[in-house]
Amino acid sequence: MYICKFTTFVAAFALASTINAQAQVKEDFVPSSMNQPGQEYPMVNSEGYARFRVMAPEAKSVSVTLGLGGQGGTKLEKQADGSWTGTTAGPMDEGFHYYHLIVDGAPFNDPGTLNYYGSCRWESGIEIPAHDRDFYALKNVPHGNVQQVLFHSPSTGTERRAFVYTPAEYGKTNKRYPVLYLQHGWGEDETAWSNQGHANLIMDNMIANGEIEPFIIVMTYGMTNDIKFGGINKFDAKEFEKVLVDELVPYIDANFNTIADRDHRAMAGLSMGGMETKLITMRRPEVFGYYGLLSGGMYSPEDLKGSNVHKVFISCGSKENPDGVTAAVKKLKEAGYDATSYVSPGTAHEFLTWRRSLHEMAPLLFK
Amino acid sequence: MYICKFTTFVAAFALASTINAQAQVKEDFVPSSMNQPGQEYPMVNSEGYARFRVMAPEAKSVSVTLGLGGQGGTKLEKQADGSWTGTTAGPMDEGFHYYHLIVDGAPFNDPGTLNYYGSCRWESGIEIPAHDRDFYALKNVPHGNVQQVLFHSPSTGTERRAFVYTPAEYGKTNKRYPVLYLQHGWGEDETAWSNQGHANLIMDNMIANGEIEPFIIVMTYGMTNDIKFGGINKFDAKEFEKVLVDELVPYIDANFNTIADRDHRAMAGLSMGGMETKLITMRRPEVFGYYGLLSGGMYSPEDLKGSNVHKVFISCGSKENPDGVTAAVKKLKEAGYDATSYVSPGTAHEFLTWRRSLHEMAPLLFK
Repeated sequence: MYICKFTTFVAAFALASTINAQAQVKEDFVPSSMNQPGQEYPMVNSEGYARFRVMAPEAKSVSVTLGLGGQGGTKLEKQADGSWTGTTAGPMDEGFHYYHLIVDGAPFNDPGTLNYYGSCRWESGIEIPAHDRDFYALKNVPHGNVQQVLFHSPSTGTERRAFVYTPAEYGKTNKRYPVLYLQHGWGEDETAWSNQGHANLIMDNMIANGEIEPFIIVMTYGMTNDIKFGGINKFDAKEFEKVLVDELVPYIDANFNTIADRDHRAMAGLSMGGMETKLITMRRPEVFGYYGLLSGGMYSPEDLKGSNVHKVFISCGSKENPDGVTAAVKKLKEAGYDATSYVSPGTAHEFLTWRRSLHEMAPLLFK
Repeated sequence: MYICKFTTFVAAFALASTINAQAQVKEDFVPSSMNQPGQEYPMVNSEGYARFRVMAPEAKSVSVTLGLGGQGGTKLEKQADGSWTGTTAGPMDEGFHYYHLIVDGAPFNDPGTLNYYGSCRWESGIEIPAHDRDFYALKNVPHGNVQQVLFHSPSTGTERRAFVYTPAEYGKTNKRYPVLYLQHGWGEDETAWSNQGHANLIMDNMIANGEIEPFIIVMTYGMTNDIKFGGINKFDAKEFEKVLVDELVPYIDANFNTIADRDHRAMAGLSMGGMETKLITMRRPEVFGYYGLLSGGMYSPEDLKGSNVHKVFISCGSKENPDGVTAAVKKLKEAGYDATSYVSPGTAHEFLTWRRSLHEMAPLLFK
């Protein structure tokens, strides 16, 4: 089952509208960690409120597509100095959110933030500090690298891009590593798991803490089908399967110190990337031995027949379909599969769900 | 001598205002290669004109900070469908240009383009196809990787980022490589040489053509001093020297297959990065054996006394200070130094000058 962003958006509206807009807001705002260097706004406080400020002296209206129920986001108010400011009517969910500005009816990015590829465009992003953010914090530990690779794809006639996380110890000896192929969601691209997901920092910290054995992660672009929300039901990921399995996997095995067999190769993805994972692992069980669906559907026991899968991981946010996830995993276990479910507390179809899911899934892989 | 962007901006104004705005424009516009995926605008034609289109139905005025003399850029005209469109009054210089929109008096990025870090912010970018663009084109040749590394910096108390270009053959044997440390300009960052400069593609193509022996390039953030245009004269790059020479160089030598001596280590930079190169190579000649200043000042024979430098490369665009560059190199040669000058035809203080400079400089290094 594919949960599109629009559904989540509506759910967020419903939630926000139950919050009293007159509540006292704690005045401990600090710049969002996703801001451009030196930019003060947007800010976030310890309760999860977001505050915006944009200079637009001659604009007639400025709003933000985030934070307020039923009115299209947060309306900003014009100040005497020509800036527009406003605070969300209630606390936001912890973690990362995409948004943009509406300036006189037209969409623009907030000049204060870095941009993140989502909804098929580079969007503004804001980070509401999560209580458990330590696991993806940038620390003074040995850091792995995120390598941009360009590989030739005969099936599409293009040079394509992937990012490869190699652990800190990689390359210092001839040691070979298992590989997780990790896919982004609809409208995102191969930058999402590093930029929004901090996958490299999650791995660095877990490896430094001795929580996992090092492995490689490969992230590439999965929107090879021209899909829109309306066309999602026809989505079969066959073109992408060719790129991933027949072109990228051999490239990675030829160019990195991998253990090149299904027992040391996993595939996982978030949202649409989960759909792709399900479709591709079902058609090519000889390639991958570990499967992960992160807010991206479920396997039934029938789906896995003959797959010889070593481990199935299925997760979502508590504001998505947690009962569906736990029920699916219960059924898989009853049918004899090694399956684990995870529900991210207090999150919806957004990146904190997936950061936490990677953190929960990583120790289960390649056992 | 440091040529700031403002000077170049004024020069571009003077040029553009001499062009007849009524000229017939060739209608062979195609999307700029720097656009976001699937975005049609901005467009460029074969003569170097740029055409913009932005949806902003309720805006009172929209302009672009590019292309028209004396009026603050190109004013866009409102169309019946709520979009604003306009074409530069004349052809732009070939290559990459930063810009942004002014919507009702406020700066926003063009939703059509990718963003590039310049002027200490992520800006819109456009590419006017250059007649010689083949040397930085993405081709089906063996590609090197661009690796993001995070290194600990005791002197600044931070985890810092660098990008490392490793040639396609890197890591397949135990072969060790020379290293070029390559710096960005004022207001840019460690992403500039890959994103705007295509340094990796320039290297891939030259290596594939047998024009150079493979080497590594390291690009890191050089704005450790809190400098603004007004403070540029006090700029001494001493903090940055510590990060670069005492922290990053040892990190690279410990983590990559480098030849770790001055005879196999070069430093070069564009604009402010050239200033840094000059200051740092003069103070630490035992670290670097090859120096490159790209639109970033010159060495006098006195500057190089006792340096034992193997090669000096000095370049700029023909619209900058070409006579100064050639005269400086002439003096260096007369004093017995191995020096080469290069003047990029028809370009100013912009990235096509520096792409070409890297292309000219690379074959001269590590001989």
